[in-house]
Amino acid sequence: MVAPLKVGLAGLGTVGASVVRLIERQRDVLSQRCGRPIEIVAVSARSRGKDRGLDMRKLRWVADPMTLATDPAIDTFVELMGGEGDPAHSSITAALKAGKSVVTANKALLARHGVALAALAEKHRVALNFEAAVCGGIPIIKTLREGLAGNAITRIYGILNGTCNYILSKMEQEKLSFDACLKEAQRLGYAEADPSFDIEGHDAAQKLSILASLAFGTRLDPKAIYVEGITSIDTADLEWADELGYRIKLLGVAVKTAKGIEQRVHPTMVRKDSPIAQVMGVTNAVTIDADGIPPITLVGPGAGGMATASSVVSDIADIARGLRAPPFGRPTARLTASRKAPMQRHEGGYYIRLLAKDKPGTAATIARRLAQQSISLESIVQRHLGPAGGSSEKRGPVPVILVTYATSEDAVRKALAAVKRDRVISGEPQLIRIEKN
Amino acid sequence: MVAPLKVGLAGLGTVGASVVRLIERQRDVLSQRCGRPIEIVAVSARSRGKDRGLDMRKLRWVADPMTLATDPAIDTFVELMGGEGDPAHSSITAALKAGKSVVTANKALLARHGVALAALAEKHRVALNFEAAVCGGIPIIKTLREGLAGNAITRIYGILNGTCNYILSKMEQEKLSFDACLKEAQRLGYAEADPSFDIEGHDAAQKLSILASLAFGTRLDPKAIYVEGITSIDTADLEWADELGYRIKLLGVAVKTAKGIEQRVHPTMVRKDSPIAQVMGVTNAVTIDADGIPPITLVGPGAGGMATASSVVSDIADIARGLRAPPFGRPTARLTASRKAPMQRHEGGYYIRLLAKDKPGTAATIARRLAQQSISLESIVQRHLGPAGGSSEKRGPVPVILVTYATSEDAVRKALAAVKRDRVISGEPQLIRIEKN
Repeated sequence: MVAPLKVGLAGLGTVGASVVRLIERQRDVLSQRCGRPIEIVAVSARSRGKDRGLDMRKLRWVADPMTLATDPAIDTFVELMGGEGDPAHSSITAALKAGKSVVTANKALLARHGVALAALAEKHRVALNFEAAVCGGIPIIKTLREGLAGNAITRIYGILNGTCNYILSKMEQEKLSFDACLKEAQRLGYAEADPSFDIEGHDAAQKLSILASLAFGTRLDPKAIYVEGITSIDTADLEWADELGYRIKLLGVAVKTAKGIEQRVHPTMVRKDSPIAQVMGVTNAVTIDADGIPPITLVGPGAGGMATASSVVSDIADIARGLRAPPFGRPTARLTASRKAPMQRHEGGYYIRLLAKDKPGTAATIARRLAQQSISLESIVQRHLGPAGGSSEKRGPVPVILVTYATSEDAVRKALAAVKRDRVISGEPQLIRIEKN
Repeated sequence: MVAPLKVGLAGLGTVGASVVRLIERQRDVLSQRCGRPIEIVAVSARSRGKDRGLDMRKLRWVADPMTLATDPAIDTFVELMGGEGDPAHSSITAALKAGKSVVTANKALLARHGVALAALAEKHRVALNFEAAVCGGIPIIKTLREGLAGNAITRIYGILNGTCNYILSKMEQEKLSFDACLKEAQRLGYAEADPSFDIEGHDAAQKLSILASLAFGTRLDPKAIYVEGITSIDTADLEWADELGYRIKLLGVAVKTAKGIEQRVHPTMVRKDSPIAQVMGVTNAVTIDADGIPPITLVGPGAGGMATASSVVSDIADIARGLRAPPFGRPTARLTASRKAPMQRHEGGYYIRLLAKDKPGTAATIARRLAQQSISLESIVQRHLGPAGGSSEKRGPVPVILVTYATSEDAVRKALAAVKRDRVISGEPQLIRIEKN
């Protein structure tokens, strides 16, 4: 039998403890699949005494993750502590410099230091694997890095944040407000006490930056991403979406355009019959469009201890069997600076919901402002939602729903600014981009 | 620069020609991704002169695939001729024995000779890759072989045949007969002139045998698969399925049961809101259930020149970067004989459609026969489909639709045999298994 792969594991939270259990439980199969056993020889975590349901006597304890990272007894360092700063960053750096392969689930760290760490891994001829950093249990990194090695990818988009998808699904299915659904998500542990990182789209943006790099061979650049969260979505938007044949999802989208790589995270209307529209609750999904072939979609758990752990274990297994691919698919020196396509020049269809003041000429004014920006309308609906034939006495503002054909972000923004100046609408217009799929 | 990987390619049909084009077009990216260039140094095909839209002058021609397979100038042999016999079998065998890695898209060959060829590849320490053999452009082989290396898979099922899914989708969406949809599939090139291999489920069965081996570590055994095609499906079944909240798909299912591995291909009712139910047309999809994690579903093109070629190229790229995993996930010596779970002992829900003679006591008789086999009913409907209030003058047989709770195949068969003996129904009962998902 070949010598075992010796793993040092830093971080024993839900995922870390699941990794220990999975490697123990699947010992024989992993050994067969990799041609050698995988052994966790030492662990490190903040608190030694905490009950994790693990037999800690079997695991050699190393108090300091930095010490573990360079421990001569390990071949591979698994970082599951999290956080974009130290000790995660310093210990991964130390491990790579000491010639040890690294597995991490740390998307924040990768979004910030990914290219530098990948260069370090290359220099020391070791692996840097991070399947668990994006979409938990879905093998999307492997698919992009190896499975579609020969495909010319034109677009990649997906539901990258389970919290947002849970909230939007629940708002749609139970016609509850955003706040009520957020509270429920918090109660169930799907959202943090401070949910802003998720609901404002930053979590999805970090993941998108990793996917975009793998798909397009660009250097990670989270700052190049236009980010808009889901807090402005109203149940009315979900009902209109349904009526128009769409669902609303928070998507991360990276697409090759003539102007560069467009990267954006925002609430998006997707056709109801598309695979991604079916994805409800905390589930994640990613669709890949490549030149000359129909789209490929991967759907699965975006989080959860066992799902994430299974990706960590498959990363460790790849190292055990000697696979070492460039972390971002290409040598870091060949990653190109991402040419950012400015959001004003984004082109696509738009859903616009306005509250029109109920006076003569309003519709004509709105239509004229759009025409001035050469925006063509696929549909326009002016009425209250709900059963027809309601009382006509209540003459409040009337919702006007516009769906445009492909136009530019700039044109839409200008038209809406003009409509606002015309004082024919109440409040802020709602604007949701439509993604063709 | 490291020496290029030198490829010999036998078979220049749609897929083969697409492989040549893709490797040419993606030359630089592939070289970056693999750390070395990939070069097609020689080709072989039945007819040299045929116009394939390729510049054949660039490609060294070898008339005999056997000669190409052992050509000292190649490292890797790509077999895209098809057929489970020779020259595919003999040339792959020769290539492996000559120490060359092999890529093939040949599911029929693998279903029959897969284990022996895998053993040969192991012996000579070369790769045997076949991503394109199952679900064309979907990276399902890589996902099972590497991506879920640590997962204990409990069930794998999917839409493995695009022809059948096209026909069933069209029957459902356009309310056309099976024959009309088959003709249309033939016209569009989705079905062969002799469609039986597809529509009777044999194509799906070959693919399922490969997936089951990778998922469960069993030796391929296409004969262990229960196979039933889609020719008996009536538009009435699709309409009832819709009314009951299901869709009908031809699924290949491999599942671990206490009695062994159950492998079956048959028309299946799947819940309308499941990811797999959304898959329409020639698209393929596979869902993987593993212990302790939510299901993972992969959706994408099951056929087509470029889609299949992209899988062939990713297999070649893996060889170029030095990856060599056991073809069926584990060393062939560790593959276990598949303990076949007999179909009579299959347990699940059933949809049953009977044509009941319109006379008193019929429903009672049917209900009694089911009760005698301890079958509980989730629902029973006795009426003609279509708008209510039709003429009552036409007193023909009345459709009775039964949906059972989980029971055994054996019990259902016995109950229906008794109902037939009772002479209360016309014609043959329709039986469609329900798959929980």
